Amino acid sequence: MLASHPDDSTLTLSCDQLTDLLQSVFLAHGTSLDVANVLANNCASAQRDGSHSHGIFRIPGYMSSLASGWVNGKAVPCVEDVAPAFVRVDAANGFAQPALAAARPLLIEKARSAGIAILAIRNSHHFAALWPDVEPFAEQGLVALSMVNSMTCVVPHGAQKPLFGTNPIAFAAPRSGGAPLVFDLATSAMAHGDVQIAAREGHLLPEGMGVDRDGQPTCDPKAILEGGALLPFGGHKGSALSMMVELLAAGLTGGHFSFEFDWSKHPGAQTPWTGQLMIVIDPDKGGGRSFAQRSEELVSQLHGVGQSRMPGDRRYVERARSVAEGISLKQSDVLRLRSLAGL
Amino acid sequence: MLASHPDDSTLTLSCDQLTDLLQSVFLAHGTSLDVANVLANNCASAQRDGSHSHGIFRIPGYMSSLASGWVNGKAVPCVEDVAPAFVRVDAANGFAQPALAAARPLLIEKARSAGIAILAIRNSHHFAALWPDVEPFAEQGLVALSMVNSMTCVVPHGAQKPLFGTNPIAFAAPRSGGAPLVFDLATSAMAHGDVQIAAREGHLLPEGMGVDRDGQPTCDPKAILEGGALLPFGGHKGSALSMMVELLAAGLTGGHFSFEFDWSKHPGAQTPWTGQLMIVIDPDKGGGRSFAQRSEELVSQLHGVGQSRMPGDRRYVERARSVAEGISLKQSDVLRLRSLAGL
Repeated sequence: MLASHPDDSTLTLSCDQLTDLLQSVFLAHGTSLDVANVLANNCASAQRDGSHSHGIFRIPGYMSSLASGWVNGKAVPCVEDVAPAFVRVDAANGFAQPALAAARPLLIEKARSAGIAILAIRNSHHFAALWPDVEPFAEQGLVALSMVNSMTCVVPHGAQKPLFGTNPIAFAAPRSGGAPLVFDLATSAMAHGDVQIAAREGHLLPEGMGVDRDGQPTCDPKAILEGGALLPFGGHKGSALSMMVELLAAGLTGGHFSFEFDWSKHPGAQTPWTGQLMIVIDPDKGGGRSFAQRSEELVSQLHGVGQSRMPGDRRYVERARSVAEGISLKQSDVLRLRSLAGL
Repeated sequence: MLASHPDDSTLTLSCDQLTDLLQSVFLAHGTSLDVANVLANNCASAQRDGSHSHGIFRIPGYMSSLASGWVNGKAVPCVEDVAPAFVRVDAANGFAQPALAAARPLLIEKARSAGIAILAIRNSHHFAALWPDVEPFAEQGLVALSMVNSMTCVVPHGAQKPLFGTNPIAFAAPRSGGAPLVFDLATSAMAHGDVQIAAREGHLLPEGMGVDRDGQPTCDPKAILEGGALLPFGGHKGSALSMMVELLAAGLTGGHFSFEFDWSKHPGAQTPWTGQLMIVIDPDKGGGRSFAQRSEELVSQLHGVGQSRMPGDRRYVERARSVAEGISLKQSDVLRLRSLAGL
């Protein structure tokens, strides 16, 4: 299944091959077929799109979390139809992505009939990028906004100790002349995965990203990870947005706040046990012309003032290259995945 | 109606007195009684709460915009019931606040029955703070999120010229142990009104707020106002959020983008002719305990890590003082308002 590469330290897989391999990895470590499908697609998509902090880099964290008994890889999400525009899911201590997948048809049906709909996922573990959750809605002409809280690692503006998670906000909107406008931004100054990668690779961080265990500013990613904390992006504004994510993704859904769960009895657990909010809008119920044409006009104007790259474009470029040339991986990573899959 | 003050350069008015005075000002300058009511309440509330860039400071801009024929002070908003969770309003080239007021009962009814509801206001002029639009929903136990775009004055991240407005996002959520959590943040590095105040008072701005007419960084508020531009807050993240505001407040509602309207034939016009989006959620349809109790728990934890002031608290402190002691205004300002009111 693996094509050899001119440089024998790397191997090239198609996205389908990587997805199949990852599915086998998840299945071999205690997930159901449904869960393995969803997570393998998610993880392979991140790798395909160059989101390396949420690609195969995450597999050890998934494995150790499953092995610790912290998250239920066979959880069956329970979808509740609460009101004409409100869907609720109990993820049953499983991953958030299968819960979203289970609720998606009802959520889309409600968004189209009511004009807007909300999905409140609770009791869920989100360990992935957030953009894969919103992008598919935009591909169907809908606007999607999602928020997920994580685990205490961000010091609120004006506070002395961490409380918030990295608490990303993701947004996707269709456009008529190209792939959807999609952003996924941590409300922390930096994504936690990027801090982990910098620590692994021995890079220093820019100033303003975090503090050490004594609350002093540091550029050392290890000092942030080992008892230190991140700062919010944009000072009090990013901090206010992070608070909003706690309120909506946890307070409203019934999930845990980022500071509320205790994984100390599950050594190896890495997946935050929180909640997730999704809002989906049918934009063509607004008072204007076709929304996708309007967003295209905005893109055209953005190009006109010199913004050449739209949110999401970097991923689309990587995606196109991965589809054309395959996904290039270190041989050692592929061998480890195959070993994890029992192949 | 005015009480004299020990320092005779200031006068103290009650909030009701200021509201009445402002209502007379609006009525004397071509608004309907409904519009005068809404705008006077809004403007007096901002002054009461210490939001000085959106208090009586705005009156000259309102007056010159009305006098120029740019905005219709007697517009009657047209509310459309589009879907079970979707309300649309054509503000008929009037102010946004009366359009929101006209739609509010239907919006609340839908949010309570459907779980979430959206209001798309188009053809509207928003010249005020955004927090007064969301706070009343939280006082009724609902969560509200609003966005409004304005006029081109912010350079998108990575671009060379301005395109976005200051594009604020406001959010309000109830809490069981105190007044609602409310924030109102410009997605620009600074609010336009604060730049105007700094220019008027001759203050320099902190670094990173804006650029001059040549696109070079400047701390001079006049250089920003006279051909220069603001920057987004938080680099590419704030810029992405500002783009989202354009897409939702204008693209989706049918309002103008911040770059789309031409007020050059209306000398004196200052009110952006755009759109506004409001999303209102019934948070107790989520899967948890009472939302207001959950948000109170978050506040308690925030206090625990050293964040003493919650979003909105500064306004509540000013509000309490204004209620107790009255609103202190410069005598010259009060005399000018009385003159504008024809008193």
